[in-house]
Formats: sequence, structure tokens, C-alpha cells
Amino acid sequence: MNQPRTDSPTTEATPPDIVRAAYMELVVTDLAAAREFYVDILGLVVTEEDETAIYLRTLEEFIHHNLVLRVGDEPAVAALAFRVRSPQDLDRAEDYYRDLGCDVRRSAEGFVRGIGAAVRVQDPLGFPYEFFYETEHVARLAWNYERYGAGALVRLDHFNQVYPDVVAGAAYLEDLGFKRTEDIRDDDGITYAAWFARKHTVHDTALTGGDGPRMHHIAFSTHEKHNILYICDKLGALRRSDCIERGPGRHGVSNAFYLYLRDPDGHRVEIYTQDYYTGDPDNPVVTWDVHDNQRRDWWGNPVVPSWYTEASTVLDLDGDPVPLQQRQEAKEMDVTIGADGFSYTRKGETDHGFKLGNQV
Amino acid sequence: MNQPRTDSPTTEATPPDIVRAAYMELVVTDLAAAREFYVDILGLVVTEEDETAIYLRTLEEFIHHNLVLRVGDEPAVAALAFRVRSPQDLDRAEDYYRDLGCDVRRSAEGFVRGIGAAVRVQDPLGFPYEFFYETEHVARLAWNYERYGAGALVRLDHFNQVYPDVVAGAAYLEDLGFKRTEDIRDDDGITYAAWFARKHTVHDTALTGGDGPRMHHIAFSTHEKHNILYICDKLGALRRSDCIERGPGRHGVSNAFYLYLRDPDGHRVEIYTQDYYTGDPDNPVVTWDVHDNQRRDWWGNPVVPSWYTEASTVLDLDGDPVPLQQRQEAKEMDVTIGADGFSYTRKGETDHGFKLGNQV
Amino acid sequence: MNQPRTDSPTTEATPPDIVRAAYMELVVTDLAAAREFYVDILGLVVTEEDETAIYLRTLEEFIHHNLVLRVGDEPAVAALAFRVRSPQDLDRAEDYYRDLGCDVRRSAEGFVRGIGAAVRVQDPLGFPYEFFYETEHVARLAWNYERYGAGALVRLDHFNQVYPDVVAGAAYLEDLGFKRTEDIRDDDGITYAAWFARKHTVHDTALTGGDGPRMHHIAFSTHEKHNILYICDKLGALRRSDCIERGPGRHGVSNAFYLYLRDPDGHRVEIYTQDYYTGDPDNPVVTWDVHDNQRRDWWGNPVVPSWYTEASTVLDLDGDPVPLQQRQEAKEMDVTIGADGFSYTRKGETDHGFKLGNQV
Amino acid sequence: MNQPRTDSPTTEATPPDIVRAAYMELVVTDLAAAREFYVDILGLVVTEEDETAIYLRTLEEFIHHNLVLRVGDEPAVAALAFRVRSPQDLDRAEDYYRDLGCDVRRSAEGFVRGIGAAVRVQDPLGFPYEFFYETEHVARLAWNYERYGAGALVRLDHFNQVYPDVVAGAAYLEDLGFKRTEDIRDDDGITYAAWFARKHTVHDTALTGGDGPRMHHIAFSTHEKHNILYICDKLGALRRSDCIERGPGRHGVSNAFYLYLRDPDGHRVEIYTQDYYTGDPDNPVVTWDVHDNQRRDWWGNPVVPSWYTEASTVLDLDGDPVPLQQRQEAKEMDVTIGADGFSYTRKGETDHGFKLGNQV
Repeated sequence: MNQPRTDSPTTEATPPDIVRAAYMELVVTDLAAAREFYVDILGLVVTEEDETAIYLRTLEEFIHHNLVLRVGDEPAVAALAFRVRSPQDLDRAEDYYRDLGCDVRRSAEGFVRGIGAAVRVQDPLGFPYEFFYETEHVARLAWNYERYGAGALVRLDHFNQVYPDVVAGAAYLEDLGFKRTEDIRDDDGITYAAWFARKHTVHDTALTGGDGPRMHHIAFSTHEKHNILYICDKLGALRRSDCIERGPGRHGVSNAFYLYLRDPDGHRVEIYTQDYYTGDPDNPVVTWDVHDNQRRDWWGNPVVPSWYTEASTVLDLDGDPVPLQQRQEAKEMDVTIGADGFSYTRKGETDHGFKLGNQV
Repeated sequence: MNQPRTDSPTTEATPPDIVRAAYMELVVTDLAAAREFYVDILGLVVTEEDETAIYLRTLEEFIHHNLVLRVGDEPAVAALAFRVRSPQDLDRAEDYYRDLGCDVRRSAEGFVRGIGAAVRVQDPLGFPYEFFYETEHVARLAWNYERYGAGALVRLDHFNQVYPDVVAGAAYLEDLGFKRTEDIRDDDGITYAAWFARKHTVHDTALTGGDGPRMHHIAFSTHEKHNILYICDKLGALRRSDCIERGPGRHGVSNAFYLYLRDPDGHRVEIYTQDYYTGDPDNPVVTWDVHDNQRRDWWGNPVVPSWYTEASTVLDLDGDPVPLQQRQEAKEMDVTIGADGFSYTRKGETDHGFKLGNQV
Repeated sequence: MNQPRTDSPTTEATPPDIVRAAYMELVVTDLAAAREFYVDILGLVVTEEDETAIYLRTLEEFIHHNLVLRVGDEPAVAALAFRVRSPQDLDRAEDYYRDLGCDVRRSAEGFVRGIGAAVRVQDPLGFPYEFFYETEHVARLAWNYERYGAGALVRLDHFNQVYPDVVAGAAYLEDLGFKRTEDIRDDDGITYAAWFARKHTVHDTALTGGDGPRMHHIAFSTHEKHNILYICDKLGALRRSDCIERGPGRHGVSNAFYLYLRDPDGHRVEIYTQDYYTGDPDNPVVTWDVHDNQRRDWWGNPVVPSWYTEASTVLDLDGDPVPLQQRQEAKEMDVTIGADGFSYTRKGETDHGFKLGNQV
Repeated sequence: MNQPRTDSPTTEATPPDIVRAAYMELVVTDLAAAREFYVDILGLVVTEEDETAIYLRTLEEFIHHNLVLRVGDEPAVAALAFRVRSPQDLDRAEDYYRDLGCDVRRSAEGFVRGIGAAVRVQDPLGFPYEFFYETEHVARLAWNYERYGAGALVRLDHFNQVYPDVVAGAAYLEDLGFKRTEDIRDDDGITYAAWFARKHTVHDTALTGGDGPRMHHIAFSTHEKHNILYICDKLGALRRSDCIERGPGRHGVSNAFYLYLRDPDGHRVEIYTQDYYTGDPDNPVVTWDVHDNQRRDWWGNPVVPSWYTEASTVLDLDGDPVPLQQRQEAKEMDVTIGADGFSYTRKGETDHGFKLGNQV
């Protein structure tokens, strides 16, 4: 069954040892349009491709790919794939999710090119997660500056997932071995979003409170901020500035510099740089007040409504769309913008409509 | 009389040979608050100061100041000052504006500290212009990197003036020897804004169509884009992000990278970098379509309404506010946003509400 | 005994689980001069200080310090300290090094302020290593941009150690749990240097072949390359450019952008940014040919002889200088520069004196 | 006759009103190799080309070209071309140089494609100068970010000429209307180099003391420093790092960030960014002490000997090489490096061998 579970089963089984967010499999409706966006404009490197799929990687990557574009009838996300530490972790993943009562599939040859034995599950939140260790090594192009464009994408940084119950979702991810680094809450104890890491950055994935399960965005890293500004300049030159949804700007959460784009199918892509090291076992968790107008954009620039409301459909293991559950708790947009919402730049003061806010 | 002239008198007199925009005299209501903003936050260099005024310059400047902050009861602009090529140009300025029937005052000692003999006029548009050659030379701090902050302001770049009739205003500035570099028009022949240069950049001043005469902004330059981003980061750290009005972003017009701030009195300050060389006699004029959504922000990010509607009062030579004339022609905000307005990213297409546009 | 061991004893004991390079304790002869260099010029943050010692940290750090400056009669290194994953790792460290026959000291209160229980050893190579878990948490200043200078140091990145026998030294570090990421060799199988990581960067420490044990450098990270360039500009403004020993430049090894400074006591400090992610278990090791003229500087700029020959004395646990052993194998400088050495830009070609090479 | 004059004739004639350094005509021996260097590697834009010549421009240029590469038997410089303010300035140029007794040629069609009527002279120093006003306008690609590489060259900034007698050469250039901005001297009154501007930057051309007349370099501008660093990274990736002769670094003179390359024929190309505004009539001249070790490189990095000794042959109007005159006065390299030379970082101190100095 593909109906996501609303209770939270637990297990004594050992979770797989997740190394990092490794790749996402996206279903796109027009492969040529997607290729133009990800290859010609963003400069991702084609590892291989055929008439139905394109396998792309970042410049510093040595595994086969960080993104698979597969043609299909409806835009969707087929898999959020994580690399694990050893082949044995596939057994752990299989046992762990079976104990959780999830749909679990294992393939000895892997589900996509360039990846070996892998386990795919529809997790308790309804997301299609993949775990793999085996992968073809390809050339790490870190030193191939002749292939760097002015907006060079050097790493896959993280995923971001939309889910109604952030508290329950966080409990699942923390059981799975993810470490919380930051979150957004209010004084009533409501959690609006939370960030979770395995590698030594602010996150490998995050939960954004909202109707879900849906995929909010995939994020790629650049070395410097000017690389991100250049991507905007180039989109302007190509008369594609309307694919810039939000930013560029500085995040409060993560302290990273960011830009959000929408691909031709509406999938959201973040370009991201310069968060901080989180590898210590006692790395302090940073909690932000949902009413702090600098939490999402440190400069207080407004978050566009579409960023809160739109996200990508995720598929179950049969390739069917996973139905949405509504968020029951207050929504971040509602409590921060408009009639009933408010935000402040300085704690204690209430802004009567921050930038553009009076129109939002 | 301080009523700006609505006809456009002309003169056969030789205009003064203007070198560049040199400094602005701002009236501020709280000198300590203004000092915190311009010195502590923006890092302008104090050449000298007393209890009633502060004389500030940029790091690469060698004349006495680029900005005078003078305490007063109401925020206003007392002078837009231009440097001329020789002492003789003061005589030219005096004759030129007398021929135009303007109020003209000459001071052998200068109107402010650090400036020698100068001529101040209320020009035909109603603006208080100053012309001077003599000035105290002070240390050019270009090599004093120990004084550079991460958001170092290195030059005064330009002024921007609000005036109802951009065509008439442009004729006056072009007669005065300014060279038009860019403008914004529509297919009906309406001009919404225009840019004018003496030094080899895109402008020393510009006219923005609107109720005027008013001062729209003063702009300082940084060396690189990251310097501007840092100013935003610092304002966030100081919980002053609400003084960021618009940007950062890339201008279509001028191709420069920009940020707009509002000082504690509401005076608008632009931080600006990397426009292009315009020194050739046949430098091509760039005309933008008012409906081109990339003209004001190359990335298509929205212009906040306050940027179109708010500006600083200017004073006549007696220190009295100059009354406003209403713009008679269509206003840029009206024709680009909302019910009757439209913009496009790609010529021929009409965006149904660009970013945040549906709320604006 | 403080004579480093030349054989390589092994142990079946479990090594401590090292998280990262955490801090270095430096002995400096003039505390005021050292403070001017590290605080006034480089902008490290003072956590606390007294007349005999200063405790410094980087802007993104949350543990008590990354550098201790302690006044003493002779410049030296008292400790290279690594953070471990848990308090239990102190027991592992103690047992592990006792098995190796090393001098081991444990302090329940810690050896320096801000650090709790710790184990210090003189390791088999002769270096004073510290392992600790407990530390005072201090404010992570990542968001405090008002404290960022134009050359802001945000993280401690790594140590670099000089040791005669890189092969033996590498075996010890790999047994201890470090993962090799890169090395420099020749066709005769000689290893000239190697890099070793615990956190997900190219290294937490490295071995440079030479007379040792000595400390080659400590490295701090900036966010971007312009931050490093600014440090050079500032040193020029302060007429301290002679403390720039090498660079700035792009490393071949690590692909990072670098600068080497010498502090007032001659201790070498690297400023470093933008290496690559190495956290995967099968991260590919990069091996460089010692004759490749781009291995140390990707742009082929010469390495100054002092960089190869000079390094800091290390102290044993009694505070006495550890005597040096001579490197027996060929030295990198000898095989690459001058009469018997050669380098190439393109494999197969031999440069007859690369830049300045004819003088070196 | 093509023997440069050693006396300095003067004239009462009015010199042409020079706007800026506009283009250089280079003779190269392998057009394909030159095209690879200037187009494929440096990214200059091809305006047009045939089997014997390539016409190149920078991204912000609107005149036909900034560089002409013409195939020939020996590497040389055929023209240093300056744009003048009006067609009438060609008459002034013709009269001015005839009065000076120079070889003067005028062409109604122009000497190269894309340039109209022009005057070429062999000036009193022996250099082939061209003056022109008419030129084909081509697309200014400032907004065409899709064509920007990571090392984008946006403007031609200046020329640099080698000549024995800097004092006599400076007198000639100042008579011609150039304004001195900086120079390098010693306490004995010897001038080693000087910089001269027409546009509002530090220079349109400069004189470097040495055996001449020869062409020292042509300089192109980037927007930011990282663009220059990228060019080095790319050259490393292409295994062409040996064409990096000096830098990157920060100049003392001009305060600009720089890099010097050598093209396949040995012609020197500087990549340059961020000098300061010099457009005021009383812009202060900056004089540097030849013994100041930060004058040429603000960071005190050594100047390679080839930079002082090597330069390009210039041709007379018949296309024959102009014979060299030896510099009679002390040479900058001799007085600053080696046995008889010295430099200081701090006035009053003498460095005993700055970086690499002991080898130089």
C-alpha cells in the first residue's frame, strides 16, 4: 500500500550507516528542456545519457552521478538516494525498514545506471529513499578548471522534504541516525521546520512543515558567492530570469548564501554556499523563532508565497504518486505574513509589513 | 523665488566644465544616529566633525569630503555639489544660471568646510546645485587597507534626482554638458527615467520621473560585489536589516550590481559596483522598454513600491523646502505593476504577475 | 625518555575515535607581539587571556579555543590537540599509546583552560599529541558579521608536521584511524609528503618529509579567496609584507587556495580555503609526481626554500625540545630545484628553470 | 628614417585630443597558436578574422576591436592605437608630428579593418602610434553574461612601453596631453618608470626605463580579482602554467590587482583590475621610492628578472624593427636586487634578501 503511515512505529534494528545525500532521481516531462536547464545553463557534467535518462554530476564528485533526469508523463521524484558506509548497510536498511512495516525492494544490480546493489523503501513518512554503497567511480573534475563556468556547481549539498508533522518526521530521521543542527519553532512549541546532517555540513536533508510528503528542493554547492550571482546574471542574459523564484540572499538558518530556481517542470533547485562545520558530537543546535524576520533571509527580504506552497510530487515504489496529508498545525507563512501573522527585525518590536510585506 | 520654473529658458552662455559629482550636503535630524549609520556601519571616513556637522569621504577620495551631514529640524538635501575643471568655471556657472533666471549665490570662502570659492544656484528644475574647484586635499586612503572593512566604500559614484518632466529635465542637463548614457521609455514616446555622465561612468546624476524636485539617492562604490553582500550581512548582524529597502541585485540599466538602503532619516543610499566605461564621444545610448521586467533588476526581482514613491525634500538657497510639482505623464510603477500595468521577461510574452507581483 | 622511537611498534588496542584537529598550543617569546599578529592583524577572537597565555578561536568555532599562545623562552609547539568523540576515547588513547611504549600523561582537569579531562602523549614520531572530549562551549560567532573583518578566519582547518620517514609516519597515522587523501611520490617509490583526514576535508594533519619531528604549520580557513588576498593587502598597508613567506596561490595538492605567513616567532601559519569533500569511505587517493611543477603551486610559482627547510621545534611532555632525526631519503627541494633537480609543467618535458628557477 | 630621435624637438602645434588607448596591432608568428591563447584561453571576442589576421575585442567594448593579431615572420608590435575625440584631431595629429620631424602617414580608409581614416606616426621615441576617430560600432556584450567565462576580460585598460630615457619620454607624453599619475624615482633624482592617463584611470600608457623603444605589455581588465585567479587555475588545468610570468599580486603603483602572462610569441599581457579614479585636474601624483620593496608588488613578492629585461620589438612605418638605444641611467633591477641593490619593507630598514631574494 502506498498510503503513508501516520503512526510512528519503531524498531530495535540497527539503522544503516548513512554517509551522505548522494543523488536524486527526478521525473521530467521534457528531457531536452531539462538538459538545457541542468547542463547548458547550470553546467552539470553529463556522465552518461540516452533517450530516456541523463546522469549528471557536480565538478568535485567521483561517484557516478548526483542527479538522474528520467523522462515521464508527470513531474515527480522517484528517489532520494543516500550513500551508506558499507555493503553490509544494505542488509541493515532492509531489516530496519521491514521492521518499520515499510515497502522494501532490493536490487542486486541497482535501480539506475552507475549504482550497484541498492535498497529502495517507501519510508514511514511516504518518501522513496534509496540506500547504496556500490557505484562506478568517475573522474573527479576538481582540477579541471577548463570545464568550470563562472557559476560552477561543485557538490551536491542536500535535499529538502515537505512533511506535515515535523516533530514525528524528525523523530524518524533522528532514529535513522541523522543529527539535528537547526530548527524553527514558536513559543507555543510548534516546530515549523528542522535540518538534519550526516556529513559535516548543516544538512543532508531537512523537513519543511507543509502538506506532504513532497520534495521541496535539491541543493548544489558553489565555491563562492559570486558564482551564484553569475547564475542570475546568465539567466537574465538568456531571458530566463523568471525561473529565479527566490534570492539570491543569505539564510539565517545555516548561515549559507542561497538562490532558488525552478526547473522547466517546476522542480525547485537551490544553489548554496558556505554553511559551517557540524561534525562534532555535541554540535550546538540552533533554534530560530518563526517570527524572526531574519530566520529565512538574514537581510529580511520576503519569502515568496510559492516557496511555501509549491513542491514536487513523490512516487511510491510502484511509481504511483503518494497522496498528500494536510498539515494540521499552524503554517509558517500564515503566522508570519498578512492579517494574523507578524514578524520582527528586533525581538520585541513588530514590523508593520516588512519589505513588500504589506502587499503579501 | 523658490518656485521651480516650469518653462525651459535657454542661454547662449558657456556652461561650467563639470568634472564629476563631488559631494552632497544632507540635513539629518539626529547627528549621532546618522554618524552611527554612515561611519560605524558603512565605514565612511571622517575628515572632520563638530557638534553640528560631519564631513565624510570614501577611501579613495582626495578632496575634503563626499558627504556632509548637517543637523537640522527636517530631513532634506541642501546641496548637490559638482567639481568643475578650473576656478574660471565659477564665473561661467554664475553667468550661465543668471541667464537662466535662477537664484545664484557666490561665496569666496565656500559654503562648507574644506571647500573654497563656490557658486550655489537653485537650478531651473528647482534643485540646489553647487559648483566648486578649490578644495583641501586630504589623504587618499586607497593603500590603507588596514582601514578597509569588508564592505569598504571607495568612491562617490553618482546622484539620482526625482523630477516630473524627464524630457525637459534632460534637455537642461544636456545643455549643461551632461551626456546621456541610458534611458527608459515606452512605445508611446514617454520617457520614465534617464542617466547622465560627465566622468567616464554611466552617470554622475540621473533623472527619475516622479513628483519633484526631490533627491532619490546618493550612490557610493565598492570594489567588488561581495563587499555589498557583506553590508547586508552586517546589517542583519546588527538587527538593522529593515534599513535594506531593495536588493542586492544586478541592474539592467548601467549593468551595475546594487543595493539600496535607507538612512535613519529615510534618505536613500545606493551601494554600487561595476558599471562600464562611457568616455568615448560616441558612446552608444542604451534605451530600455519600461515593460521589460529586467530593466530595473536584471534578475526580474520586484522593485518595492517605496523605491518609486519616496524621496528626499530638497531645499532652496534660503533653506526652505522646494514645493513639489506632480508628474503629468504615466508613472513607471503604474504601467508595470498591478491592474493596468504589465511586464515581460521575454519580449512578446506578458508575465501574469512576476515574482511577488501578484501581491504588489 | 624524549628520544623519538625509530622502530614502529604496533598494538591491537582500539585507537581513540578522533573527530578533528581542534587546537594547537604554541610557545611564543613575546606575547604582546604574538597578540598583535594573531588578534589585531589576523582577527582571531580572544576567548580569554592573562599575562602568560591567550586563548583564541575562529569565528565559526564553538569550543573554547583553536589556538593557545603561551609565553616562553624559546619558540616551540607544546601540543597538537585533537577532539575525540566521547569521554571513553580518553581511556582508549591512554591504553593505545601505553601499548606503543609512549610517554602518556592524563589530567582530569585538562592541561589548558577551557578543556576538561585530557590525555597527552609523546607519540611514536616524537610529537606531543593531546586528545580531549570535554570543553567549554563558547558563542559560535558565525552570524556575528559585525565582527568579521575583510580577512575573516572562520575555522581551524589542519596541522602539518615535518618527519623524516613519511612511510613509517603514515603507517602510524593510518593505524590511528586517519585516512590518506593525497600524497607526493616519485617513480622510485619514495614518498615525499602525505595528507590525512578525519573530518570531511582533505586533511586534519599532514606529513612533510624532512628533518623532524617539527611542526610545519597550522592552517585557518576563510570563506572565500578574496579574504586571503585582503590579508596580504593589509600586511602591505602595515608594512609587514615580509611576514608573507609564500603565496597566495592555488595548491595542486588539496586544490585549495593558500597563503603562508610567519608569525613574530617564525611559526608558520597557513590561510586556506576551498578544498573538497573526502567523507566517503572509498574517497580516491590522489598521488602527485614530485617532479610535477604544479603539485605544490597549481600555477607553477616557485616554492621558497625556507618553506622546505624551516619549521618549529616540538616539545616533549616535560617541555624539553625533541631532538631531530635527519631525513635519509631524497628531499623534495633537492630533486626538484637546482643542479640535480628538475620539474615539468607538461609530463615528458623538462623545464630548464621554471619561474625564478634559474636563480634558485 | 627609422632611427629614433634622441633630442627632444618641440612644437607649438596643438596636439590631438586623445580619448584613450584603443587597440594594439601585434605581429604573431603562428596565428592558430595566438588564436588559441587569446580566444580559447583568455576568451577575447572575435569581431572578424581571416587567414592573415584576427580582430578581437573585450566584452564591454563597442568599437571594432582592441587587439589585432596579424601573422608575420617575427614577433613585433606594428601599432599602439589611440582613439581621438573628433575627425579634426587627425589633422592636429598630422601637423603635430610633422612639426616634430616624425615620419607621418595618413590613410583615408584606415590601416586595419573596422577603423576609418587614421594617422600613423613613428613618434620621437621611436614608437608606432596610431590616431583614429572613425570606427565600426559593434555589439557591446556587457549584458551578454552567457558569453562571460569565469575569467572574463571586459576592457582594454592600457599599454606599457620600454624606453631608455624616462624623463625625456615623459616630457613628450605630457606635451601630447597625457597626465602623469604615478612614478618611481630614487633620492638621486633618477626616474625609473612613470604612468600617464587620458581616461579616468591610472594610465592609458606608461614608460618603463630600459633599452628601447620596445613594448612591455598590453593590459586587459576584469571586473573582480577572482576572475584573474581563475585564469591562473585554467592555465594550470591546461598545463600552460609556464605562460604565467609574474603574479597574481597587488601592485603598489596603481593599487591594482595584476597578473602577467606571455603569449606564444612572448608578447606580455597583463590582466588587471581595480585601480582608482584620476579624472580630477589636480589628481595627486604618487611617487614611489625605487628601493621600496612594495612598489611593484604590495605584498613584497619578487619581480622575476625576465619582467625587467624582456619586451617586444616595435616596428617603424615601413614594418622594419626599430633599433634599440641602451638605457644610460641605473636600471631598476640592478639597484634593487643582488650585490649592489637593496630594498626595504620598512623605510630605514634594509632587507637582507626579501622572499627568494637570496637566490635572485
